[in-house]
Amino acid sequence: MSQTLSELGSPPQLDPQTLRIVPLGGIGEIGRNMTVFELGGKLLIVDCGVLFPEDEQPGVDLILPDFSYIKDRIHDVLAVVLTHGHEDHIGAVPYLLRLRADIPLVGSQLTLALIEAKLREHRIKPYTLSVAEGQKEKFGPFECEFVAVNHSIPDALAVAIRTSAGSVLHTGDFKMDQLPLDGRITDLRSFARLGAEGIDLFLVDSTNADVPGFTTAEREIGPVLEAEFGKAERRVIVASFSSHVHRVQQVLDAASAHGRKVALVGRSMVRNMKIAADLGYLHVPDGTLVDLKAIGDLPDDQVVLMCTGSQGEPMAALSRMASRDHKVEIGQDDTVILASSLIPGNENAVFRVINGLMRLGARVVHKGTAKVHVSGHASAGELLYCYNIVRPRGVMPVHGEMRHLIANGDLAELAGVDPGRVIIADDGAVIDMKNGDAELVGKIECGLVFVDGSSVGEITEADLKDRRILADEGFVSIFVAIDFSTGKVIAGPEIHARGIAEDDKVFVDLKPKIADALLEAHKDGRANQHQLQQVVRRTVGRFASSKLRRRPMIIPVVVEA
Amino acid sequence: MSQTLSELGSPPQLDPQTLRIVPLGGIGEIGRNMTVFELGGKLLIVDCGVLFPEDEQPGVDLILPDFSYIKDRIHDVLAVVLTHGHEDHIGAVPYLLRLRADIPLVGSQLTLALIEAKLREHRIKPYTLSVAEGQKEKFGPFECEFVAVNHSIPDALAVAIRTSAGSVLHTGDFKMDQLPLDGRITDLRSFARLGAEGIDLFLVDSTNADVPGFTTAEREIGPVLEAEFGKAERRVIVASFSSHVHRVQQVLDAASAHGRKVALVGRSMVRNMKIAADLGYLHVPDGTLVDLKAIGDLPDDQVVLMCTGSQGEPMAALSRMASRDHKVEIGQDDTVILASSLIPGNENAVFRVINGLMRLGARVVHKGTAKVHVSGHASAGELLYCYNIVRPRGVMPVHGEMRHLIANGDLAELAGVDPGRVIIADDGAVIDMKNGDAELVGKIECGLVFVDGSSVGEITEADLKDRRILADEGFVSIFVAIDFSTGKVIAGPEIHARGIAEDDKVFVDLKPKIADALLEAHKDGRANQHQLQQVVRRTVGRFASSKLRRRPMIIPVVVEA
Repeated sequence: MSQTLSELGSPPQLDPQTLRIVPLGGIGEIGRNMTVFELGGKLLIVDCGVLFPEDEQPGVDLILPDFSYIKDRIHDVLAVVLTHGHEDHIGAVPYLLRLRADIPLVGSQLTLALIEAKLREHRIKPYTLSVAEGQKEKFGPFECEFVAVNHSIPDALAVAIRTSAGSVLHTGDFKMDQLPLDGRITDLRSFARLGAEGIDLFLVDSTNADVPGFTTAEREIGPVLEAEFGKAERRVIVASFSSHVHRVQQVLDAASAHGRKVALVGRSMVRNMKIAADLGYLHVPDGTLVDLKAIGDLPDDQVVLMCTGSQGEPMAALSRMASRDHKVEIGQDDTVILASSLIPGNENAVFRVINGLMRLGARVVHKGTAKVHVSGHASAGELLYCYNIVRPRGVMPVHGEMRHLIANGDLAELAGVDPGRVIIADDGAVIDMKNGDAELVGKIECGLVFVDGSSVGEITEADLKDRRILADEGFVSIFVAIDFSTGKVIAGPEIHARGIAEDDKVFVDLKPKIADALLEAHKDGRANQHQLQQVVRRTVGRFASSKLRRRPMIIPVVVEA
Repeated sequence: MSQTLSELGSPPQLDPQTLRIVPLGGIGEIGRNMTVFELGGKLLIVDCGVLFPEDEQPGVDLILPDFSYIKDRIHDVLAVVLTHGHEDHIGAVPYLLRLRADIPLVGSQLTLALIEAKLREHRIKPYTLSVAEGQKEKFGPFECEFVAVNHSIPDALAVAIRTSAGSVLHTGDFKMDQLPLDGRITDLRSFARLGAEGIDLFLVDSTNADVPGFTTAEREIGPVLEAEFGKAERRVIVASFSSHVHRVQQVLDAASAHGRKVALVGRSMVRNMKIAADLGYLHVPDGTLVDLKAIGDLPDDQVVLMCTGSQGEPMAALSRMASRDHKVEIGQDDTVILASSLIPGNENAVFRVINGLMRLGARVVHKGTAKVHVSGHASAGELLYCYNIVRPRGVMPVHGEMRHLIANGDLAELAGVDPGRVIIADDGAVIDMKNGDAELVGKIECGLVFVDGSSVGEITEADLKDRRILADEGFVSIFVAIDFSTGKVIAGPEIHARGIAEDDKVFVDLKPKIADALLEAHKDGRANQHQLQQVVRRTVGRFASSKLRRRPMIIPVVVEA
């Protein structure tokens, strides 16, 4: 029986010999990964990412981990270790650094280059410490050792954290491609050694824990791309993630093999690939890369556009091409390749783009029709290898929804981990480790922090509920100025409705009813502004529900005139 | 080169020898299937279904085909042929019958029983004509022959329509399960005979045209269910579609084999299965079915609950169980089986339910983890068989988004259909057939008709745009009563904001600015209500955009006092 959060209360006082682990994000969701390690009054943070909102969160730009737990002790934070450069691991760093700008950021060369570029846009110049696989660094009571892992972005790291209270190994995001393009495999030899030295708690990426078997190797995409390029009669447009250096590498190689030039489209694609090329992670075949402006001068069958927008994002290049709102005009016999996953929730948007492109005559290739994408995360088969090699005493699945965490915990148990040492946690769970024994001991308040426009954390769940009501039902606002001494209407009622089917005219009959109700209420002695507004609200609500079968948001305003 | 809708205009005048075919729904979308056939001034309709809204259509309950095209000629409609009893083929019938209640409905026994039950809720008693496979019926110039097809609901029919202008075969929805539970296969012998007699235009279900290979047989689910039932330690909860008689049959059989009783949960499930059992389509093993109320008296390991909600619908039983808002309390070691597809767009809702169930300790089985669902539609392999058996002169793919239609058209071409006779149409396309030659000749106006509460067709795309803005940005309303002769504020400004992060206090500084702007405008001679409201709108808009970085909907109301 694994340890699960049932009705845990506040955690106990922390004694100086205990290591406390508190995930502030990434457990129970895919995104905003952030884990806090605390020992002897000092804090070490692993990752600080964002989560992308769902439809239930309209208007929200980003969701951050809740920093409340560490806010008062921000000066005790020794470092933030960034395992790799994806948004769900680094995206919230600019917001964390608003609390204290000089927290050292620790990560690999590429990871730091990507976060530095992001921070430049926020006008922040961070303190950084570049580390590489095999390297050890001590941050106060935390001895960190960095281990190479393979993922869908180069230069990803796992981190082992040794403390006086016990040892932790955190995989970050990883998979176990045995023949990666850059030859940098997940370092199972180091995993084996660390396991032999003793890992008390193994924090393991759960994203694909419920996917049986093994994740296909990235290099298997190459021949598929080559074949598609070979068949292409006119332009080829490839869409993928803007940080997927190896995917772009394979597109460059396929283009070069077919005598095509590649133009990068989209700000993040251009920025990230420049960084990757400058640092030597992306190898551009001579003369293959051209500027988007130069594409017009080339024959169609010598053109490749490498762009973003593979998730159907409405403002990205691909969506705009599909709706003929982009300078690149997709036409008959162009080939569009979506070399990307389909993130759950994005299906309608992506299929809308695919339908639009096909309507314009393009041939569209996607992972449903050809092997043009592989995942960046270890599947169940790989995770079993991992457990058997590390043989950890305890396991806490991370980076996943509940279904992924439980599937991962089941794998750990199958591989022989004591079920009592498998911790199925949640954001805000508090895990204490003493003498190498990790245990769920409590839970802290830890909500979703919404970024919307310039506001951070000001949008509440109540605001989102208002937005959902407004979206589903619209609103009616009623303004009336009355003489408070008599209850007689002086101006109005003015009634405005938006987002409901009927136009404002439907409310004409309602106006005398409101005036009457106000007069009546006044006679009864319900004469203050709040009471009169309630009268208006009830009158309008009854009308909307009986006549229109609706429950719009109602905003009554009664003022004295 | 297939025929596609590019810049077609209005269709030509229809001459009496020409058969006109106008799809009003189902082409370019999956749902609201409806096709109008017209010859010699008489109309025959095939199917009349609804489409379910996407997130882009907040607050909308249902989407209907646009009946404008037939409204003025509703008395020329000879019959509505309903190919089967799914909502996307019958759901809009109640709305069509509002235009004329005595349009005869033609369909199989089960199809009619289902539409009659639905119409009873709308207090409509329809005129019906029950038909069976092999039967021929003449409706004016349309000679119809009905052909058995296999689908995910029993008693589905294809329909061949012979006219003086040519012959059409419409598959409805179908697949080609060669060993269906009820032994009622898609009648390829009749397809072959009809093909030999000559099919000029073949309207073919495209839903799975881009899925390679063959759709798995329904009976392969049985052993999987049996195995899951065998492993189950406590209750088994199965969720599926409320019309999927054969799926429910297999659940009943598996329950019976394991000595479990089944209770049906959900109004539509109970209603449909009663109809199916009464008509002999569902065979209930003796004593297997019990009332939900009786379940409490049984040991957990003798209980099966068969419910709806497999798409994560928030009000359905399964969602409510997952959020502990249902009398059935899911607990540790209950088994939940989602024996259903995952309709695109529903992923987040379904995964939310799965995560909730797993958090409560349930074991969740779904099509991602076991073969507990098969599709109801023919895949590419089956479609090729179909084309080779019918050998139609022309083809028009139906029932699909653009990507499905094009994939299906490509299959027809591969099977030897003249590419010039493959019609990739769209809702509102007009296809004329003369001497057996079908051709795209034009296009009619044909929009989405939204049902929202009691309103049908009143919600416009502009209202939905308002709703989307309200959802993303919220609104600010400003009421001010002024003396129109001086421009001086008498009451207000009252400012109310909803759905934005900041509370109303942020607008305090704005009030004197509005008063000043109004006075200023009045001095400049901009003194009518419209002009003054524009002044308020601009003042507030500038403030929101510069101070708050938002673009809320702004509702300025200036009245005379």
